[in-house]
Amino acid sequence: MNDLLLRACRSEPVPRPPVWLMRQAGRYLPEYRAIRARHDFLTMVRTPELAAQITLQPVDLLGVDAAILFSDILVVPAAMGLALSVEDGTGPVFHDPIRAAADVDRLRVFEPEVALAFQLEAIRLARQSLAGRVPLIGFAGGPWTLASYMVEGGGTREYRVMRRMLAEAPALVRRLLELLTAAVTASLRAQVQAGAEVVQVFESAAGALGPRDFLELALPSLSQVVKAARATGVPVIAFAPGAACGLSAIARETTAEVVGIDWHTDPAVARAALSAGAVACQGNLDPAWLFAPPAVIRERTREMVAAFGPRGYIVNLGHGVLPETPVAHVQEFVAASQGR
Amino acid sequence: MNDLLLRACRSEPVPRPPVWLMRQAGRYLPEYRAIRARHDFLTMVRTPELAAQITLQPVDLLGVDAAILFSDILVVPAAMGLALSVEDGTGPVFHDPIRAAADVDRLRVFEPEVALAFQLEAIRLARQSLAGRVPLIGFAGGPWTLASYMVEGGGTREYRVMRRMLAEAPALVRRLLELLTAAVTASLRAQVQAGAEVVQVFESAAGALGPRDFLELALPSLSQVVKAARATGVPVIAFAPGAACGLSAIARETTAEVVGIDWHTDPAVARAALSAGAVACQGNLDPAWLFAPPAVIRERTREMVAAFGPRGYIVNLGHGVLPETPVAHVQEFVAASQGR
Repeated sequence: MNDLLLRACRSEPVPRPPVWLMRQAGRYLPEYRAIRARHDFLTMVRTPELAAQITLQPVDLLGVDAAILFSDILVVPAAMGLALSVEDGTGPVFHDPIRAAADVDRLRVFEPEVALAFQLEAIRLARQSLAGRVPLIGFAGGPWTLASYMVEGGGTREYRVMRRMLAEAPALVRRLLELLTAAVTASLRAQVQAGAEVVQVFESAAGALGPRDFLELALPSLSQVVKAARATGVPVIAFAPGAACGLSAIARETTAEVVGIDWHTDPAVARAALSAGAVACQGNLDPAWLFAPPAVIRERTREMVAAFGPRGYIVNLGHGVLPETPVAHVQEFVAASQGR
Repeated sequence: MNDLLLRACRSEPVPRPPVWLMRQAGRYLPEYRAIRARHDFLTMVRTPELAAQITLQPVDLLGVDAAILFSDILVVPAAMGLALSVEDGTGPVFHDPIRAAADVDRLRVFEPEVALAFQLEAIRLARQSLAGRVPLIGFAGGPWTLASYMVEGGGTREYRVMRRMLAEAPALVRRLLELLTAAVTASLRAQVQAGAEVVQVFESAAGALGPRDFLELALPSLSQVVKAARATGVPVIAFAPGAACGLSAIARETTAEVVGIDWHTDPAVARAALSAGAVACQGNLDPAWLFAPPAVIRERTREMVAAFGPRGYIVNLGHGVLPETPVAHVQEFVAASQGR
């Protein structure tokens, strides 16, 4: 078994750092688009056989050192009773977003084994198909990120509705975060039980808050989730791109073994911020650089790997693969990082 | 004359820090919306009497310590020959965005006194109406920000088209930046000649780049523009929200007297980054906090003013006023910062 990822998460010595890519199972792959042509996105997420098949695609096609479950962070709010639809072009939408106390009252606590059975079954099937080749990563959205999406109702640049709600009705936002903290914790525990060997928490909307608000409001719920996931025994990766409080606060408060580094952060600065706690780093090439000529991709990748250094490091992008990225360029990134 | 702004820009002692707000002449004001109901946005920008009138509105209504010209950063690309339209709901749009070398070839060098005569006349009229009450701030977009908008064609969250162009055709992006550096410089010089007493350069798309790319690509052109504006003798405020290279690099390279601080940055961290060069700070309350109850606005404002300290400080938001903000709340912010 290729256990590079597990060893890197624990900052153990490795012959080379492992590599995988956020959104590696996604639209840039023709093999993914072939499935997408026959099924809508939510059907793919909710059909264990399809989700497992998509999860395996990049392992076969790219030779990455980890698989990440094909799923979506918004299955958790959907399981809480918020109707989710995915529309071509605009992405996932909640047509009845959370705007008032009554909307929060309607959310329900759920049993992952029932409400997210499709996700857990996908994990079991993916583990079978992987047959120990590489570890499988489970994941969930951070409470603040899920809350923001539920309040906004869809993708947003500035999170104006959520930020206004936080100023006008902070108690309501806190109640929503509490519910989500419990829900995300339950989801991650169930994923580990089903076979996830590492979990990543995506606090993708971290950048919607200033430093004080992130520290006071979002970080406590993120930390609770990470600590609960750690208690299951698997390594946890905390990724909070653009978190204004800084990486050292993320590492210190969450106690995650690995902190994801976004592409706005210089590798040396990230290492300096995290060195005290001996926390592993994951990241962080700007995904747009995968559009560059292969020689440039190789050069940037090698420079990044050298800047992070070999120990406690997981090669990745600083954000998800962009949909139009040429597959050959992604392969170049993987090969360069593996010294091929 | 209230010269608090001019003295604060030069880090001279002041009885209290001056205050103004980015987008203070804008949609949150009923008096602005009354004019907007009768004219479209570009007519307002291009009619000197209207632009001057709107520029004065917040001085009369809020008691701020500076006026900023009502205009738009995209008048510069429009003067270069790129057709601009503004559509309700979606914001400004270039229907023929820059996508290839031939598109850059078609851009033309312009004389601000001819192509931007409306803007210079608005400055002269605003100065007359202000009659020395408070200083008038002129402004322009930074070259990288204008280039990004011209390439994207409209507002964007991720700047994917521009980031891809940078990876695929960096020479083309550099040529566009050179043209814009000359155009922005000419515009700022003409604004000062017409009567602007301070200028601010908005590098609003700074966050679209990682640290290395911002340092190598965007910062040199921003620095050229700022230095040329400084050579006219007026103080210059450089605002590059989300610039991954950090504030000290912005201050050191641009040599701006004032660096704008975005709301993701802790005031103490900003001060620490800029203290070596004795650079003044401007900012940085999260505009969303102006939706909070008045007592909370006062508390947050006072805490911010105390954290920045009295010398070399200009009270402002960390981004523009949001359109739905209650006017009374903006007045509360201004009054709290002025110790009223």
